[in-house]
Amino acid sequence: MHDKKTRMRKMDLLKYIRNVPNWPKEGIQFKDITTLCVAPEAFKEACDRLVTHYKGKGITKVAAIEARGYVFGSVIAYLINAGFVLVRKPGKLPADTIQETYELEYGTDTIEMHKGSIKEGEKVLIIDDLLATGGTAKAAANLVEKAGGVVAGIGFVIELTGSLRGREKLEGYEIFSLLDISVEE
Amino acid sequence: MHDKKTRMRKMDLLKYIRNVPNWPKEGIQFKDITTLCVAPEAFKEACDRLVTHYKGKGITKVAAIEARGYVFGSVIAYLINAGFVLVRKPGKLPADTIQETYELEYGTDTIEMHKGSIKEGEKVLIIDDLLATGGTAKAAANLVEKAGGVVAGIGFVIELTGSLRGREKLEGYEIFSLLDISVEE
Repeated sequence: MHDKKTRMRKMDLLKYIRNVPNWPKEGIQFKDITTLCVAPEAFKEACDRLVTHYKGKGITKVAAIEARGYVFGSVIAYLINAGFVLVRKPGKLPADTIQETYELEYGTDTIEMHKGSIKEGEKVLIIDDLLATGGTAKAAANLVEKAGGVVAGIGFVIELTGSLRGREKLEGYEIFSLLDISVEE
Repeated sequence: MHDKKTRMRKMDLLKYIRNVPNWPKEGIQFKDITTLCVAPEAFKEACDRLVTHYKGKGITKVAAIEARGYVFGSVIAYLINAGFVLVRKPGKLPADTIQETYELEYGTDTIEMHKGSIKEGEKVLIIDDLLATGGTAKAAANLVEKAGGVVAGIGFVIELTGSLRGREKLEGYEIFSLLDISVEE
């Protein structure tokens, strides 16, 4: 009886996330998903919950953001029978790419994907590990649309809620995250 | 009848690999796996063949090498119910790490993983997309052993055979690759 009850209780994935203070710089409380990934039961549960949300929605491509996004994005792609698209920093993809440049707090950043990765009208799911300011995810959505794809959703393992307002930057898109963590900058 | 026969024939994954001449530098014929990843049927087939080889061998962790190794490594980890360990370039993992430095043609390179990712005696599978000289894979094997793990195998999507002699550098380990491509440097 006890075992069955335990199995049926929803796993608390939050306890598998490690908080790393002052990384990558002073004052940031970094949310580390590697402690979730090394725990087989938690990694499986996280992937399964994402798949439950996205299956049956006609998604034919999963575009994941380098490098932590690949860890979850490729499993989702496999499980929903979609193709997997690598979104990378410039200079890492060998063939012709399309690019998107976006604003950071100081300066700009660029992401790219191979030309031909996405077909006109294809339903594309974007996956990253963490939603903070939403800048990279918004750039990825622009990239998918530039390629002719339709953004079917943007999914995260963790969403930082509070002053960062990442969800607002992604207004108009379907946003899904497994874990909400409140932070004030 | 025809359909059934087609389905039963072993899929030729090699035709999904794109050759990119002179990348990242003049004279290199780069083997691009992103064209395999975007094709759902080929991506699934590649993952399934790797899983068929590694399942039932008591592997409890899959350590994959940044970043293309994550694409296949995480799917394998999920499917064999193992934990997933991120092997990264220095400065990208937020908590305490163990490191391994290895020789390149000119200079050295370093990879690292989080301390505590691997338990003493644990059977660990190492995954990367491509075996060329074997330098990075050998460093990953050293890292796993430094952490107290046992290298249960080293798996690749593509193995470059010929003058690079990557397999020789990994002598003593169980090496498995889906595709052999002969190259002369």
